[in-house]
Amino acid sequence: MKGGVGQYSYAQNSSAQRQAVEAAKVLIKEAIAEKLDIKQVISSSKLFTIADLGCSVGINAIIAVENIIESMNLKHQSFGPNQEAPEFQVFFNDHVSNDFNTLFKSLPTDKQYFAAGVPGLFQGRLFPKASLHFVHSSYALHWLSKVPKELIDKNSPAWNKGRIHYTNSLKEVRDTYSAQFAEGIESFLNARAQELVSGGLMTLIMPCLPDGISYLHLKISDFLWIY
Amino acid sequence: MKGGVGQYSYAQNSSAQRQAVEAAKVLIKEAIAEKLDIKQVISSSKLFTIADLGCSVGINAIIAVENIIESMNLKHQSFGPNQEAPEFQVFFNDHVSNDFNTLFKSLPTDKQYFAAGVPGLFQGRLFPKASLHFVHSSYALHWLSKVPKELIDKNSPAWNKGRIHYTNSLKEVRDTYSAQFAEGIESFLNARAQELVSGGLMTLIMPCLPDGISYLHLKISDFLWIY
Repeated sequence: MKGGVGQYSYAQNSSAQRQAVEAAKVLIKEAIAEKLDIKQVISSSKLFTIADLGCSVGINAIIAVENIIESMNLKHQSFGPNQEAPEFQVFFNDHVSNDFNTLFKSLPTDKQYFAAGVPGLFQGRLFPKASLHFVHSSYALHWLSKVPKELIDKNSPAWNKGRIHYTNSLKEVRDTYSAQFAEGIESFLNARAQELVSGGLMTLIMPCLPDGISYLHLKISDFLWIY
Repeated sequence: MKGGVGQYSYAQNSSAQRQAVEAAKVLIKEAIAEKLDIKQVISSSKLFTIADLGCSVGINAIIAVENIIESMNLKHQSFGPNQEAPEFQVFFNDHVSNDFNTLFKSLPTDKQYFAAGVPGLFQGRLFPKASLHFVHSSYALHWLSKVPKELIDKNSPAWNKGRIHYTNSLKEVRDTYSAQFAEGIESFLNARAQELVSGGLMTLIMPCLPDGISYLHLKISDFLWIY
């Protein structure tokens, strides 16, 4: 992932991911309105914590977070005019090698939340127990935590001949990718199960493909799902 | 402050600040042992949060945090072998322009805490209300949040003739620096008063100079104070 804000940076080349963020806006608003029990989730400290996992850099991460906060404030106001609004703390997470310097410089100066960057793999623990109220991850969870070693081992039946994808590959190659993903998603869910407060929400936005359909024939809006 | 890890970087040129960290170690250990009421400070969530304000980059920030955690664990063990150890979350704070990328890459892979970077001026709010258990700041609080405008205004009696220090300057220049510092430290203390939990600890390590003594005649160990 290329950092900075130059011509070839991720920040300037993530319009596909932006579409996903925009498409998910309404779904997140609805989920917060219908499914989130504010009184159960927010304790006496009146703090609402949001984690954006695999945030990268650029405007997409900021738009998603602002949408969540706006939805929360709307819901909160519906309880009446005398409710004390919660404070928001947002954790932007990505790999240690992510360009956090650029991310921090791009945060709005008038932001309505306390911001923090959290370096590390989301396939493992990143936060204390029961410390998050809302976990958000958009276009990130399909990435593997590492290259499976069988793919680059010439003596393995799953050797991938130097390629970095599994299109038109042997079954052994696809199975290896699949097993690595299964291991990663299990670790991800186990970690979040510990970090989310009881009653918290998680939105996972991922590119998905129905069985038997080639991705060449689909638009982003056709294979966007929120869990 | 020069980022990175090159020859002229802060990380390679902060041995004076390192002396302060080493000198403060024992004092911090004692303060935790004698003054911190763990049962009052740590809630049922068993979380202990530490903020290092003005952390910059390099080994100094990491040493200070590890010392605090070691002291906490020692104290905790003194309650008996069956006590569940708390989790630690550490917030490394500095200006938005700090080199957080280098800081994150230098964090130990076997660290015993959840790490986060927090960009922003410590003269203002950085964290939610009552969310910190331990605030640490070493060799940072003497920096001003900005250059007072009178110093660079040729029509002001406090014009500093292009210099960036107040040694041998007019009283008006010194008073302007002093007023800016007073404003900054007041904002700092007001912000921390909101962010620290009741019973939390704060260690502020600053270079100080007794009245009438020239800094030319002192070593670092002579003017190190912990509040």
